[in-house]
Amino acid sequence: MRTELSERLGIEHALFGFTPFPAVAAAITRAGGLGVLGAVRYRTPGELERDLDWLAAHTDGGPYGLDVVMPARKVEGVTEADVEAMIPAGHRRFVRDTLAAHGVPGLAEGDEGGWRITGWMEEVARAQLDAAFAYPLTLLANALGPPPADVVDRAHRHGTLVAALAGSARHAVRHAEAGVDVVVAQGYEAGGHTGEIATMVLTPEVVRAVDPLPVLAAGGIGSGEQIAAGLALGAQGVWLGSLWLTTKEAGTGSTALTAKLLAAGSGDTVRSRALTGKPARQLRTAWTDAWDDPAGPGTLPMPLQGLLVAEALSRIQRHEVVPLLGTPVGQIVGRMDSVRGVQAVVDDLTRGFERAVERLSRVAGRAAPPDTRG
Amino acid sequence: MRTELSERLGIEHALFGFTPFPAVAAAITRAGGLGVLGAVRYRTPGELERDLDWLAAHTDGGPYGLDVVMPARKVEGVTEADVEAMIPAGHRRFVRDTLAAHGVPGLAEGDEGGWRITGWMEEVARAQLDAAFAYPLTLLANALGPPPADVVDRAHRHGTLVAALAGSARHAVRHAEAGVDVVVAQGYEAGGHTGEIATMVLTPEVVRAVDPLPVLAAGGIGSGEQIAAGLALGAQGVWLGSLWLTTKEAGTGSTALTAKLLAAGSGDTVRSRALTGKPARQLRTAWTDAWDDPAGPGTLPMPLQGLLVAEALSRIQRHEVVPLLGTPVGQIVGRMDSVRGVQAVVDDLTRGFERAVERLSRVAGRAAPPDTRG
Repeated sequence: MRTELSERLGIEHALFGFTPFPAVAAAITRAGGLGVLGAVRYRTPGELERDLDWLAAHTDGGPYGLDVVMPARKVEGVTEADVEAMIPAGHRRFVRDTLAAHGVPGLAEGDEGGWRITGWMEEVARAQLDAAFAYPLTLLANALGPPPADVVDRAHRHGTLVAALAGSARHAVRHAEAGVDVVVAQGYEAGGHTGEIATMVLTPEVVRAVDPLPVLAAGGIGSGEQIAAGLALGAQGVWLGSLWLTTKEAGTGSTALTAKLLAAGSGDTVRSRALTGKPARQLRTAWTDAWDDPAGPGTLPMPLQGLLVAEALSRIQRHEVVPLLGTPVGQIVGRMDSVRGVQAVVDDLTRGFERAVERLSRVAGRAAPPDTRG
Repeated sequence: MRTELSERLGIEHALFGFTPFPAVAAAITRAGGLGVLGAVRYRTPGELERDLDWLAAHTDGGPYGLDVVMPARKVEGVTEADVEAMIPAGHRRFVRDTLAAHGVPGLAEGDEGGWRITGWMEEVARAQLDAAFAYPLTLLANALGPPPADVVDRAHRHGTLVAALAGSARHAVRHAEAGVDVVVAQGYEAGGHTGEIATMVLTPEVVRAVDPLPVLAAGGIGSGEQIAAGLALGAQGVWLGSLWLTTKEAGTGSTALTAKLLAAGSGDTVRSRALTGKPARQLRTAWTDAWDDPAGPGTLPMPLQGLLVAEALSRIQRHEVVPLLGTPVGQIVGRMDSVRGVQAVVDDLTRGFERAVERLSRVAGRAAPPDTRG
């Protein structure tokens, strides 16, 4: 799985693995891909530095990246408290009632909860970046919108490529205009924030829209044959996120959540605003059902919704309240049916890719000689 | 593009083209694929026979198929009038008001309209089949649910393979149990009736669920690279419907509709119940917006909705009322940007497929020798 982009980055496989877990990111890099650590859940630069230190020490010198959420529109001077004050009382009541209906206990004293999305805030993202640029990042990805111009410049001076996720060709063009080096075409079937256009249609559209920039296909990719499909669509690599959630290295901290992921079929996700206020694909749960119910108050816009539900999600996770327990994940969850190590997963992906290309070569009436490149 | 299935059917390319237009079906077969004529809009067996006669005379002896809508549950003895009587007055009023708001004229006297979906009715579908089995059909496809057992038997005695569309692995297994020979995995991004699972995820799921039955990938496929992706996912062929709508041979009878299709982007479709009562992807129009508006009466279940809107759709088409004018079409509509002949389209598809396989072979580190088979 070698493309121009993978050669440029010095990785063996054109395989980009997004994960909130440093141990998974390190293992992806060691397995020949590029591990990309998600930064949105870090509350302090110190926490991020601790994990980047660990990551740097565990990649065997291989390259790695960081995924941040940098809003293109600055909202400087706005504190979390300012935003909290904008949340209607009725929505807070709905959260309390829904938790009470499922008997969800509170957090222990001093427990700040594991789930908190504050990385979207200008000041938090900036402090994270100040910390992150002390490390030799190979890739800096922006999960939402085009990155600010000064961040792109700073990354380039630092020798770091900048990537941005796009759910439409229009978004992709905006990213290209912002100086991004790599566009991640994130299809409808992907976990997390997605648009309406499926990977099969979106990938070639984005490839044509930003040519000659390299594009990564994301969404619905969890096997070697799906990697072959993504690359057939013109991508120079694939971006995988969901698949790592059930790896040994993930240690999600919740056996109940892992069990739900292993049991879920491809039809058990929903594109809901319940998590952040923007449509994000996730496990469908009693929690998402409550928010998506027309009889309820509905969700608030980003960033209010994320702040509104942060403590509730921490409580649900801490106490493993199974009916409400969820996570962002793509439709590929239907294929995640065992807990394996990252290396085993990558081996499967690369072998499956080889088999798919062999089969395609036969269909095209081409002989498929053995690999002669070593 | 040769697979076990294409060899078995004696076609050059593993490319199945669904179309309501006999001239398109014939041209697809002549170009080396398998043209499949949609039968749902024929009102009498005589009309269908007329077009099958024409088709048989214009395929240069090549194979062709028919796509019908056979409900698995029989509703014998129910007439169209019985169903009409179940439609609430408020819904009829909504149709009248919406048409009036856009100044849509009535049909001329004696004009029965071009749009009428009655093929779903047991008696209509049966009469169509009686007529159809007088022809050497290579493939009989069922667009909705598994075909009835006696129809499968009759097709097999006739030497006709039976195909059925599936939007989930569960549906596909039901089809396999009903004796179907080929499953069409119809992804979320496809035109017409679709489920929620995207082609990238659905295709390999269905392939694994019905192994060793051959599977066709459908949804989001309108280029050679997308065909390569579909086949990489394990399909033995691809099923294309939308792409033919803007071919020269289609002669949709509406230059306004063709113009809308050429102008539409991949984000200009919607999965709406407005057409039949079941979610079907189509151009988003003021008409679908009206039905999908929470302030409106909402849609009726199948088959009521189809009967309710039949005359209205005929009027919209006859008078080319642009804001309301639509058609079932997939997200691939974003790629349909010129009117070309079917042969030119197929040439593009096969060349694009070759290029995609060549590129993939390079990525896999395999030399890609010239074709040694042809």
